[in-house]
Amino acid sequence: MNEVRLALVGFGNVAQGLTQILAESQEEFARQYGLEFLIVAIADPIRGTVLCRDGVPPAALLAAVKNDGVINGLAAQHPDWGIEHPGWDALEMIQNSPADVVVELSYTNLTTGEPATTYIAEALRRKRHVITTNKGPIALHYQTLADLAQIHGVQLGVEGTVMSGTPCLHIGRELLAPARIQKIAGILNGTTNFILTQMETGRSYAEALAEAQAMGYAEADPTGDVEGFDAAAKVAILSQLILGIPLEMKDIERQGITAITPEEIAAARANHSRWKLIGSLEPSDGGVRASVKPVCVPDDHPLAQVGGVTNAICFSTERLGDVTVIGPGAGRMPTGYAIIQDLLAIYGQGIGIKDID
Amino acid sequence: MNEVRLALVGFGNVAQGLTQILAESQEEFARQYGLEFLIVAIADPIRGTVLCRDGVPPAALLAAVKNDGVINGLAAQHPDWGIEHPGWDALEMIQNSPADVVVELSYTNLTTGEPATTYIAEALRRKRHVITTNKGPIALHYQTLADLAQIHGVQLGVEGTVMSGTPCLHIGRELLAPARIQKIAGILNGTTNFILTQMETGRSYAEALAEAQAMGYAEADPTGDVEGFDAAAKVAILSQLILGIPLEMKDIERQGITAITPEEIAAARANHSRWKLIGSLEPSDGGVRASVKPVCVPDDHPLAQVGGVTNAICFSTERLGDVTVIGPGAGRMPTGYAIIQDLLAIYGQGIGIKDID
Repeated sequence: MNEVRLALVGFGNVAQGLTQILAESQEEFARQYGLEFLIVAIADPIRGTVLCRDGVPPAALLAAVKNDGVINGLAAQHPDWGIEHPGWDALEMIQNSPADVVVELSYTNLTTGEPATTYIAEALRRKRHVITTNKGPIALHYQTLADLAQIHGVQLGVEGTVMSGTPCLHIGRELLAPARIQKIAGILNGTTNFILTQMETGRSYAEALAEAQAMGYAEADPTGDVEGFDAAAKVAILSQLILGIPLEMKDIERQGITAITPEEIAAARANHSRWKLIGSLEPSDGGVRASVKPVCVPDDHPLAQVGGVTNAICFSTERLGDVTVIGPGAGRMPTGYAIIQDLLAIYGQGIGIKDID
Repeated sequence: MNEVRLALVGFGNVAQGLTQILAESQEEFARQYGLEFLIVAIADPIRGTVLCRDGVPPAALLAAVKNDGVINGLAAQHPDWGIEHPGWDALEMIQNSPADVVVELSYTNLTTGEPATTYIAEALRRKRHVITTNKGPIALHYQTLADLAQIHGVQLGVEGTVMSGTPCLHIGRELLAPARIQKIAGILNGTTNFILTQMETGRSYAEALAEAQAMGYAEADPTGDVEGFDAAAKVAILSQLILGIPLEMKDIERQGITAITPEEIAAARANHSRWKLIGSLEPSDGGVRASVKPVCVPDDHPLAQVGGVTNAICFSTERLGDVTVIGPGAGRMPTGYAIIQDLLAIYGQGIGIKDID
């Protein structure tokens, strides 16, 4: 049995989704993959900190958050478990915890990638594998971080940065790359797709946005979603990871959905089409043309029928033609599951490109 | 550089697709994966036989078939290449060729799985990895063959048996299995989907079938496709490989598309639905209920918009909800590409579940 010790930067929704999967499937992972995942450290500025060399039982962590809102009471509740509450911040935890893998789940910043980039770099320098679902550091600094991982002989898992646990990066990088991917187009942001789908029922943009906010899909300041920044970050990640072409955010033509009118939506429907916010990468003069913009997609295109918060990506390949993957793009369990995929890949189970040197 | 010597049982369309990919990408596979694939032996009852310990250049094989219809003239055309034409049958080749991998591409028999099952078993017993795109042996005898592979310490690649090179088996087995797949439903036969799509334009079943035959999608005797036998074999493969539940063909409820009328097609369209031949696996009383039958699918379901010969599969999972994969289900290059995926998985590149013992 291979023990894998995890340190979690952040214990919000995604970390709790991961913890729930570990609680439910510990015996299954042991039996099928010979792996035992232990949560040995957590640093969350609101919910508290833990250190426990033998691992905190995942169910106890979930119960603590549910009942107390924090995980700081676990040592008192379970005095025999060897739990400490070191009160550390994320960087102190990365520097002092006995983890094999640091799971970086702090907040997303698409301008600087911080503080996540610093956390990830520090963990890699200390020869910890890193898994993140955080778009900021990967969209802005992937190559630097990947180089750092290679120098220190560890791996960097990023499946959850695009389409959450829908395995689009593993499919693109490992399964479809030798088919020669020529073009990528996708619905990469669930919030805007929900708004556009709602507008097809006759609602105005403002009404549909309000509904998305009421459902918890859109934030109070929806700019990151509706102006296409979130989708553009994912386009940058796809370009770098699947096509091997680095892009800066400013290289991506970006237009949001705020100007789309109910009349345009209705005209598209009358014409057997639908407006979708499409992130795309197309070859152009030896480079790549990258964009995020509303596109009127004909009904018989696989992306046209993808409604609500669902995401989708279409890989156009030389050898297979088009292969489309449709699945969730967000959510506690799907994003937690993305981390499971990366863990299994790092530990040689399931998928992952192997080094050949 | 790791040399991988291939012996091909059959040199028809799929083998030629594989050979074309090897001709185009030899340098790429060497650089990216450190693998050099050599075609060292072929046995085809019509096109002839070759044996060449250093590998026959793939482009020369393609040129021979194109120009001469056979590969038996290569030794005379290239006397310095060390090519022999042993005149062996498939079994003699398997027993006498110096291959690391036997690629089994003989014809499909869904009643007995022969002669392919015998070929595959013989190759496994001789400690050759085997890759096949042949549904017969895998639908009927997978467990026996997989056990044989394990006993002899070799691997059995079967990606091409369902949806050709669209990587649905790798996605289901490796990427989605830990998400807990609960239900599978797919459009698994391109010929019937083409016929049903054509009927939406007002054609009768007979007219649409004739068109499928004219396009080369349907055979002169279309029974295997239109009565659902082909899709049922794929359902058996999905059940065994992805759910781990063995099924016999007789366990699968099977109904073809021959009785569907233009009136039913039109009524579905008027009701915002489409008739699709759906292969499905659903849990039922501790077991699984397996069927292939026409289903009227609402337009907003991801399978509804899959038209023509395209295939699609929808995995319903506990942790990710529905993940749908749409792609080609047949064809020379797509099916050849399926073999490439299996080769890369066997040689530790890309994907593939590793043994944990």
